[in-house]
Amino acid sequence: MIQTPYLLFLGDAPDQLSAKVAQGIKDWRPDHAVGQFRMDGCKADLGLADMTLAQAKAAGAKTLVIGVANRGGVISAAWKKVLVQALEEGFDLASGLHNLLRDEEDLAAVAKACGRELHDVRVPSVEYPIADGVKRSGKRCLAVGTDCSVGKMYTALAMDKEMKARGLKSSFRATGQTGILITGNGIPLDAVVADFMAGSVEWITPDNDDDHWDMIEGQGSLFHVSFSGVTMALIHGGQPDALILCHEPTRDHMRGLPGYALPSLETLRDTALPLAQVANPACQVVGISVNTQHMSQEEALEYLAGVEARLGLPAVDPFRQGAARLVDALAAI
Amino acid sequence: MIQTPYLLFLGDAPDQLSAKVAQGIKDWRPDHAVGQFRMDGCKADLGLADMTLAQAKAAGAKTLVIGVANRGGVISAAWKKVLVQALEEGFDLASGLHNLLRDEEDLAAVAKACGRELHDVRVPSVEYPIADGVKRSGKRCLAVGTDCSVGKMYTALAMDKEMKARGLKSSFRATGQTGILITGNGIPLDAVVADFMAGSVEWITPDNDDDHWDMIEGQGSLFHVSFSGVTMALIHGGQPDALILCHEPTRDHMRGLPGYALPSLETLRDTALPLAQVANPACQVVGISVNTQHMSQEEALEYLAGVEARLGLPAVDPFRQGAARLVDALAAI
Repeated sequence: MIQTPYLLFLGDAPDQLSAKVAQGIKDWRPDHAVGQFRMDGCKADLGLADMTLAQAKAAGAKTLVIGVANRGGVISAAWKKVLVQALEEGFDLASGLHNLLRDEEDLAAVAKACGRELHDVRVPSVEYPIADGVKRSGKRCLAVGTDCSVGKMYTALAMDKEMKARGLKSSFRATGQTGILITGNGIPLDAVVADFMAGSVEWITPDNDDDHWDMIEGQGSLFHVSFSGVTMALIHGGQPDALILCHEPTRDHMRGLPGYALPSLETLRDTALPLAQVANPACQVVGISVNTQHMSQEEALEYLAGVEARLGLPAVDPFRQGAARLVDALAAI
Repeated sequence: MIQTPYLLFLGDAPDQLSAKVAQGIKDWRPDHAVGQFRMDGCKADLGLADMTLAQAKAAGAKTLVIGVANRGGVISAAWKKVLVQALEEGFDLASGLHNLLRDEEDLAAVAKACGRELHDVRVPSVEYPIADGVKRSGKRCLAVGTDCSVGKMYTALAMDKEMKARGLKSSFRATGQTGILITGNGIPLDAVVADFMAGSVEWITPDNDDDHWDMIEGQGSLFHVSFSGVTMALIHGGQPDALILCHEPTRDHMRGLPGYALPSLETLRDTALPLAQVANPACQVVGISVNTQHMSQEEALEYLAGVEARLGLPAVDPFRQGAARLVDALAAI
């Protein structure tokens, strides 16, 4: 569990896009973001107050989160200077970088001396159990995709936000590094050892109130040959009551796999649902989330209407239209 | 790659069953087994020559393989004495125990001093790539099961043996610890990190001659909620041309999952085949392997005839009947 709220470290971000982790935190958990820390030459700006470490500390920030991708895959000397000072001033550090904080001897030594935590969210920090498949109380919704990177995290976050806005009980359950940094906890599923994947998903979606929904962040795709095993573990470990089908209609092949066509939404439905029903016979497909960012408004609406007619389920782009109709569909089951 | 041939270490095995790894090596790779090493009180016997370390060395053995489960999960002082001596006499050590050889400081130190290798086959020793899904040359057969532990390894080994007996090109591709010790190499798939599972399967089944078959050892089951992700990675990483369906008809629930019924062979076929065709559109289900150990000969034959009539595919118990008809089915595609 990462202590909130955060000071978002943007470092010397070369552009706005490189700060997308920080942007995600600011967009989805604004209460977690007390301010931003920018170094000379930083080209990203979240529109938050620029703060020194001391100012952020005074404003209540507990953890400095590295919200930016590092250049060349290494933590630079310039970054290091800020990170060491942050530890000395009482901040924990959290990072999703490949270059682990714990592998930097100076950071590890200073953290130990100051009694601070280093959170490397890319690697598991828990010994997960093997999944036992026992039915858990509460309800769970999982986004499954025709491909990787089609908007599964966005969909789950948008539904969680809509649930909370309606005063309903909901928890976004992060299964990847950005999601973990946004919410402060979760499982780095792609880094979990094979035998414990489904068990880690059970662990992050425990027994809950009967009217509580876990909005589980999906990963990969049953049709993406590099990562389908991860998706399978989510479908069985998550025991979803509801599936949301996610799609990006303009892609001409599976991400990173030239020659592999995307499946249709019908094929995704007919593949994912029976597999989900192994763990939860009551599971239903309740809605469709389409990422229409590469379509005009008109094209998008026409496409969504066509999908809705074909599949007989609400089809929306939650970025353009919000997730209200997807949440309505949950309420109906 | 573990150096062969082996001296099979049975230690103080409490019974024959506890030496099943050694038994597997002796049954499937008799050329790898120059002799057995038994300590006082050993209750297992493979029918091999009992040898001292010196005798085994003289007979050409290169690796001492721990072919027995250890009591209490620890490498005992009595075992340790033999293992240290073996290293000193020039043997490598290989083990599938949870208690890793490398974690024993004395063994690690002696191995280093003597320039010998410690092979802990339960943990990966290779940095596997992420799967790229590129079509590979050669052919591949994968056994998939209605449940865990229904005879998938046995089936692949029996088919590999039959292929070789016919002078055909075949390699058994181990994906679990027993299989790795039997053949001397393979991947400990259940211990591979999620993102690299399918890539490890691609790695162990590389490009090959057009008329060469990899007989890939299956793991888990698409219907076993604890381990289905591992099975999914095998189906996509393995790019099988042929699937063999494996089943144990007397089980009343999935192994370790009370309340979970086994799927029918038809459901397994209809689930596994479309998923396999994502990675290899030419994949076919070619035969059925049934573990009839809990049935009489008469019951078994009746059951097999019924399955064969229902599914229109050869159905055999390779333990009772050999794998000839399964290999015939491969030859037909």
